[in-house]
Amino acid sequence: MEILETNFNEKLPEILEVIEKADFIGIDLEFTGLNQTSTFSHPFASVASFYNRIQKTFEGFIVIQLGITAFWVHPDDEKKFQCKSFNIYLYPRGRKSVFRFEGSCLDFLAGNGFDFNKLFTKGVAYCSVHDAEKLKGQLAKKHKEKRKQLISKEPDVSSHIQVPEQEQEVVNKACEEIDKFLESADQEEVVFDSYNGFQRKLIYQTIEGKYFTQVSASPKDLERNRKGIVITRKKTLDEEIKLFEEKCQEEIKKLETEIGVTHIFQALSKSRKLLVCHNMFLDLIYLMRQFTGPLPEDLDEFKKLVHDFFPNVLDTKHLCTKEVLKEVVGSSVLPHVLEACRSSLFQLPEIESLGDQKYTLDDSKEHEAGYDSFITGVCFLALTNHLGILPKDLNANCKKLKSFKNKIFVLGLDNITCCNLTGPDEKPSREHVFHVTFPSTWKNTDIIQHFKNFGPIQIKWINETSAYVALQQREYSQSVMKSIGRYPGVTVVPYAEYEDAQSPHEDRKRKLPVSSSQESGEKAVKKAKTTTSKIFPENSDW
Amino acid sequence: MEILETNFNEKLPEILEVIEKADFIGIDLEFTGLNQTSTFSHPFASVASFYNRIQKTFEGFIVIQLGITAFWVHPDDEKKFQCKSFNIYLYPRGRKSVFRFEGSCLDFLAGNGFDFNKLFTKGVAYCSVHDAEKLKGQLAKKHKEKRKQLISKEPDVSSHIQVPEQEQEVVNKACEEIDKFLESADQEEVVFDSYNGFQRKLIYQTIEGKYFTQVSASPKDLERNRKGIVITRKKTLDEEIKLFEEKCQEEIKKLETEIGVTHIFQALSKSRKLLVCHNMFLDLIYLMRQFTGPLPEDLDEFKKLVHDFFPNVLDTKHLCTKEVLKEVVGSSVLPHVLEACRSSLFQLPEIESLGDQKYTLDDSKEHEAGYDSFITGVCFLALTNHLGILPKDLNANCKKLKSFKNKIFVLGLDNITCCNLTGPDEKPSREHVFHVTFPSTWKNTDIIQHFKNFGPIQIKWINETSAYVALQQREYSQSVMKSIGRYPGVTVVPYAEYEDAQSPHEDRKRKLPVSSSQESGEKAVKKAKTTTSKIFPENSDW
Repeated sequence: MEILETNFNEKLPEILEVIEKADFIGIDLEFTGLNQTSTFSHPFASVASFYNRIQKTFEGFIVIQLGITAFWVHPDDEKKFQCKSFNIYLYPRGRKSVFRFEGSCLDFLAGNGFDFNKLFTKGVAYCSVHDAEKLKGQLAKKHKEKRKQLISKEPDVSSHIQVPEQEQEVVNKACEEIDKFLESADQEEVVFDSYNGFQRKLIYQTIEGKYFTQVSASPKDLERNRKGIVITRKKTLDEEIKLFEEKCQEEIKKLETEIGVTHIFQALSKSRKLLVCHNMFLDLIYLMRQFTGPLPEDLDEFKKLVHDFFPNVLDTKHLCTKEVLKEVVGSSVLPHVLEACRSSLFQLPEIESLGDQKYTLDDSKEHEAGYDSFITGVCFLALTNHLGILPKDLNANCKKLKSFKNKIFVLGLDNITCCNLTGPDEKPSREHVFHVTFPSTWKNTDIIQHFKNFGPIQIKWINETSAYVALQQREYSQSVMKSIGRYPGVTVVPYAEYEDAQSPHEDRKRKLPVSSSQESGEKAVKKAKTTTSKIFPENSDW
Repeated sequence: MEILETNFNEKLPEILEVIEKADFIGIDLEFTGLNQTSTFSHPFASVASFYNRIQKTFEGFIVIQLGITAFWVHPDDEKKFQCKSFNIYLYPRGRKSVFRFEGSCLDFLAGNGFDFNKLFTKGVAYCSVHDAEKLKGQLAKKHKEKRKQLISKEPDVSSHIQVPEQEQEVVNKACEEIDKFLESADQEEVVFDSYNGFQRKLIYQTIEGKYFTQVSASPKDLERNRKGIVITRKKTLDEEIKLFEEKCQEEIKKLETEIGVTHIFQALSKSRKLLVCHNMFLDLIYLMRQFTGPLPEDLDEFKKLVHDFFPNVLDTKHLCTKEVLKEVVGSSVLPHVLEACRSSLFQLPEIESLGDQKYTLDDSKEHEAGYDSFITGVCFLALTNHLGILPKDLNANCKKLKSFKNKIFVLGLDNITCCNLTGPDEKPSREHVFHVTFPSTWKNTDIIQHFKNFGPIQIKWINETSAYVALQQREYSQSVMKSIGRYPGVTVVPYAEYEDAQSPHEDRKRKLPVSSSQESGEKAVKKAKTTTSKIFPENSDW
């Protein structure tokens, strides 16, 4: 089902229902930027510095499509599955939000049939979880106060301000018009349309003070974004209450639409269901930023944040690059995985698609988030079937999946396969790696020449004047710094030392010239101290 | 005519032709962001600080549609006009460009029928004027060198590098395949598709060295963004030259498409024609940034930049808020101006639309840049007709327009009506204005109370804790600082002093704690010294 602003309120209950019903949920996102600076890769980075680098690079980009497919065992046949898919357009409408787009990314999405006109005119709004709670609280408080005031029959004049001399005439004129309106028999309402915000505030408080028992005033949207006031005669108390409650319901509904997709994010989190996604590191970064606010600088804090919201995630790209599946699947790119899963090597359970959006495997809708969430779930079914997991066990509590759960595939790091959300990450030795800087005239051969005494090397260029050099014969690692010699314009630094100088840790701050205040230094120490002890309690599963 | 990537090369000559033919040219732009922070306005700012503030706020937004309508006197009737319109979609395709979008702006454009799918898939590329020249130069140089080498029959091995030991096997294997290919009789070509960039470089240089007289090698795009090499048998010299020249033409054509809209920008500049635009301050900022690069911080340098590229611009919004036209036109919003121009108060000359895109006044295509450029031109015709200017005089040299030319309408500055591109700007006194900060609990009444000894005041809120206060009775201006007294948590600063502290001038830098180097301070002084003398030579028209 395609979810837009126009059908969101109507379809939300159905989405929440299938989230509750699901055994597991496939998800996928489309974003406004990918920014893959693959040329300048950092293959020897730790997961922490990888996270740190990319969460900064991707700032300002947003999720514009969220695909969800809920899967559950068929009620009549425990070997089959049923599923329901939703393809949701997300767009920060009606607010002064500014976000970033990457040219090539839009180009790619539009080329794959993504409808940006639909997105910009009918995308569903969203906000952070925090803002959603705050806005709901504010509205409830406002309604409660107004309700109390309505029944008490007394105006609340506590916030009224004195009318400034130069505005007195405006207020007098408004009063005259209200008096005239009250004298007239047939006039149903009077509309004030020529006052500025401050003047409207003065008129509202004058009405509340002077005409409380006679007229009601409410805001009215005029053309060209201007605002006015409609004045009507006071009704009986019962009528007033009825009107007020209707208005409350309208305002609540409006707020629900503004909170939009955040309802779904919250429901996914609350359900604690098994979330299945393919290659989800970036997806998690975007998702958490869009729905929980700015991300922590520290990877451990990010892991905790993700795990608190989604305690059961499974990355199918990690799954199919591990153990027995690795050789059967081959390439772990999603369409290739699907191809393998449909081959005779695997057995696909029967899947019945329900609802309005019935994807099939023969659709060719790659990069439509709803379709990708569907095929991610389908692959997951075939892969777990191959691992001998029964359909009825395919959920957050599945013991056979425990070692794969909460491990997120990470691309392009030497000897590191994943980011472990519930424990420490792999930290392969980088003793044989060096960061080298040199004149911009240098080519591969110059670097090879410079390291000629230490056997064959692997070179990873960073830019025109720097590269990483990894020794193939690690036994030479210790002798490099001792015997490579100093040449003007060339520096060689052991990798660990280099990365340390790059990371925003407090160790490094001490080495830098004093530029930040003592206080911020203290804060950093405090932060570092609390991090390790808090984030992985003894009972976590690592 | 709608101009997209698909018809750009075909239509470019027609666009350049009408620019040359035009008496004046109406233009209009659509952008990805407007960011009107109207709530926090700064009505007492100078034009310089206004420019400085907005050019920063609008960073990262881009022009996505350029409308051009060229007008000229009808060849058969000097009381009539002919015109031709072009509506051009601009999009930085095929490059890793990142830009910003404002939610409400896209919403607005999409709501007005702007086709973003078309933009992202078929928008015409562009680059800065500087990059265009550089790219053209580089390609010409490359062609020249290759041409020379082709005729000399000698390979250029000067940039060849030594084959690293570990790559020797790759090179040997490639040579074996080429030898096998040369021995075969029927094989037309051989494709290498499994080498990385560095290996391909080694193979190219090996072919150039070892097989120069026997085979030709050229790059080939493979699927999934991979690159390969195609090897064919060497042709006769004539055949080789013919093939080479064809390839050159192809590469030139490809580069022309990449330079795209920049051709039009350059032609508009070179033509020195009268450019007519409505409310063009922001348009000029966007246009100059997109086609000439990052903008100068200093307004005078920006004025010089604009004037160097476009020596004859006329803002119809400035025109119709001036003198005799002001009262006849009323509201200066473009559709309202058009309404006035079509009323009996004005006389519209007959206009014949030529070309494929024939806009008429009864189209309702507001916010399509092509249409807006058309109606801007139409309004200009009616307004100048009212001023008694003859059709034949409507061009860059028109004496009766001289006082309106190069003056750009500026919105929301107290007692300042325009930015003068060829002279100093209005600098009305701000002696009666004060910048005030106070606790966030303060309301209008508290500020009025604080200034009660100085007569009625006008308040412009900046944020919750600061505002500008302007005295209505200016005779009190001098006494404020002397007698207002000090209150904890409240500051009152004369406007000039406040603005001075905000501006990035070197005066201010001196006041700040030493943070930048002496050198940059010296640069700033040097810059300030050259600015005034250089930018407005004695013969400029102010």
